[in-house]
Amino acid sequence: MRQTVANPMCISDKEFGERIQRTQAAMAGAGLDAILAFSSESEPALVRYYSDYWPSFETTAVLIPATGKPALLIGPESLIFASARTKIPAVLQLMDFRESSQPNYPGSKLPTWADVFKQYPADRLGIAGWHMFPHAIFCNLEKAFTGKAIIDADAVVRSVMITKSKAELDCLREAARISEIGLKAILDNIRPGLTEVQVAGLATAAMLNNGAEATGYPVWCCSGPNSRQAISRPTHRPIQTGEIVQVCVGAKVAGYSSSIGRPLVLGSCDQTLRRFLEVGHDAEEMTIGLLRAGTPASEVAKKVHGFIKDRGYGDTILYGPAHGCGQMECEYPFIETSSTFDLAENMTFNVDIFLSNSERGFRWEDPVIVKNGEAEQLSSLGRGVNVLAV
Amino acid sequence: MRQTVANPMCISDKEFGERIQRTQAAMAGAGLDAILAFSSESEPALVRYYSDYWPSFETTAVLIPATGKPALLIGPESLIFASARTKIPAVLQLMDFRESSQPNYPGSKLPTWADVFKQYPADRLGIAGWHMFPHAIFCNLEKAFTGKAIIDADAVVRSVMITKSKAELDCLREAARISEIGLKAILDNIRPGLTEVQVAGLATAAMLNNGAEATGYPVWCCSGPNSRQAISRPTHRPIQTGEIVQVCVGAKVAGYSSSIGRPLVLGSCDQTLRRFLEVGHDAEEMTIGLLRAGTPASEVAKKVHGFIKDRGYGDTILYGPAHGCGQMECEYPFIETSSTFDLAENMTFNVDIFLSNSERGFRWEDPVIVKNGEAEQLSSLGRGVNVLAV
Repeated sequence: MRQTVANPMCISDKEFGERIQRTQAAMAGAGLDAILAFSSESEPALVRYYSDYWPSFETTAVLIPATGKPALLIGPESLIFASARTKIPAVLQLMDFRESSQPNYPGSKLPTWADVFKQYPADRLGIAGWHMFPHAIFCNLEKAFTGKAIIDADAVVRSVMITKSKAELDCLREAARISEIGLKAILDNIRPGLTEVQVAGLATAAMLNNGAEATGYPVWCCSGPNSRQAISRPTHRPIQTGEIVQVCVGAKVAGYSSSIGRPLVLGSCDQTLRRFLEVGHDAEEMTIGLLRAGTPASEVAKKVHGFIKDRGYGDTILYGPAHGCGQMECEYPFIETSSTFDLAENMTFNVDIFLSNSERGFRWEDPVIVKNGEAEQLSSLGRGVNVLAV
Repeated sequence: MRQTVANPMCISDKEFGERIQRTQAAMAGAGLDAILAFSSESEPALVRYYSDYWPSFETTAVLIPATGKPALLIGPESLIFASARTKIPAVLQLMDFRESSQPNYPGSKLPTWADVFKQYPADRLGIAGWHMFPHAIFCNLEKAFTGKAIIDADAVVRSVMITKSKAELDCLREAARISEIGLKAILDNIRPGLTEVQVAGLATAAMLNNGAEATGYPVWCCSGPNSRQAISRPTHRPIQTGEIVQVCVGAKVAGYSSSIGRPLVLGSCDQTLRRFLEVGHDAEEMTIGLLRAGTPASEVAKKVHGFIKDRGYGDTILYGPAHGCGQMECEYPFIETSSTFDLAENMTFNVDIFLSNSERGFRWEDPVIVKNGEAEQLSSLGRGVNVLAV
């Protein structure tokens, strides 16, 4: 039974169908006759992309045959949940997708992998989400699979997902709009003495109250020495006057995740810090300016990292200067000096300048849409060097 | 450089050391001379248990040798983040733990699995988190591993984790206390017209503002037909008078996750619904009463499911009536009719009565600590049949 979920923004049934068709065309080109696209709670992108189902606790996969309709594979407890969300009517429950507490569900009779392959025979099976596909499931699948090969199909799926449709871009625009509401809640209410978690809570509450379906990732607030963390989580540390407070805020809308990163300084900012921040800010603006269809991604990275090095901060670079965004706040491809692709219209990136020295670090992050001319910027709120009166 | 993280509750360095020692003793009994305990963002339990590090974006593992000190294995971007949190001083970065966008990090030189096994030689290697350990990492590890066998070590680690220490119980008590603050924010402010996400936001904001380090899982609010979902996520559906609104609220404290589940009815409750709810409520109370050290877990499940069947609602049972809780809101072991273990003092469970028919469902959920006599109940707020005036 399908439930009504009133979504202010969504991807149409037609577009979900087209995604399957485009993937089937790419599979044919790659000599695959089925793809199993796997997802987990923290890596939901692939199954959400193909089915709109968004797993929690249990894992899941979409099985896409060479021709015809796909199937959604789920665990023992997710049937009503998945049925209310999936655009793929065929739903099969397998014990392999149960949650990590691994209940036995005595008495339940679920299909096996052998049943799945009887219904969806394949000779060459591709796994998408290869890097995270569980070995335990792989072993069970391999025992039942009577075809020739099980191989990495990430490249096939990425070729389908890498440029975004109009509806996807609209979701990313809306996610950025709501992320700015979250960021504004911090800019308006942050004060020394609040803990990092409390600051993160301000943005989280504002986004959930204003149209986000969730946060794209747990909101970050990392202050003082914690600002050096390229990946972080907020702690119970109270924020203090005169130090960097790094906030990264992202809303999720219809599966699409945004992120806006800003370093804030409360009350006072010494010249050394201001100079360091200005390099980051200028590198962020520079990267946005360089993102144009036709440009080699590596060229963008080399220019931006060259600029940072020329300003004397080369040893503060960890990665970047941008990464794909869409279903995941950070998804393939990264823009790096080693990148081998050219930018194309309607690729979407989070420009992400993270710099860190031995004392402090910061990130500017802004989502953009690549166009033939200037990139479309989805976030502008507070992109300067923010020294806030407290 | 270790950062100061002011945590109101935490596990002592000494206890982290003891966890390693107890695991090494259990490994010896199981004939293992190393364990690799794997975690991801949505399944952080094992690495948090051994190191206090709590991954995000990148995956991670703790390598525990037969004797001596363990090592924390992380990805390319998590060094400062992990170093600020880990109780394990030895930290190694491997490309295999990078995030799903799979950057190349040109120029970075990280250790390989061969380097790891040179430093930590092993003949029989156990993997904990076996069900989720990525096949891609397994293949790389297998190539570098010169020992005899790589096997499932979940049972070894579970035997160490299954009863909780005083400090762990204190964390769970505090997580339950803060969860009740979240629940109260819903009870005090819920009204028809709010969306499920907005209701979830009320509890999330209250918990983050009152000492939670995060939510234990994304807060659930599922209303009307969505209440039938055993696993769920809130949607943009506005809640309505006279229908079940199911809320599940859990705070996380120092890694320990709580959960309190309550069905609420706004404004009016027909007799059919009240009768159905009363069975669930009575089954919840009955389960809590049955949880005593020495009792076979299967006996609890049989009695409670027998009671629900006797009342005529047997076809509304999906699982249960309780599951382990601790690092994860839902962790091994489940209490099921097929369980083969006896309850022991200081095991911790979420009593979880979920019943659902073709129209609606609900869950009562309450964390408890098993004692030799009556169980210690960590949550009592609003455990009755809640019909709220609106």
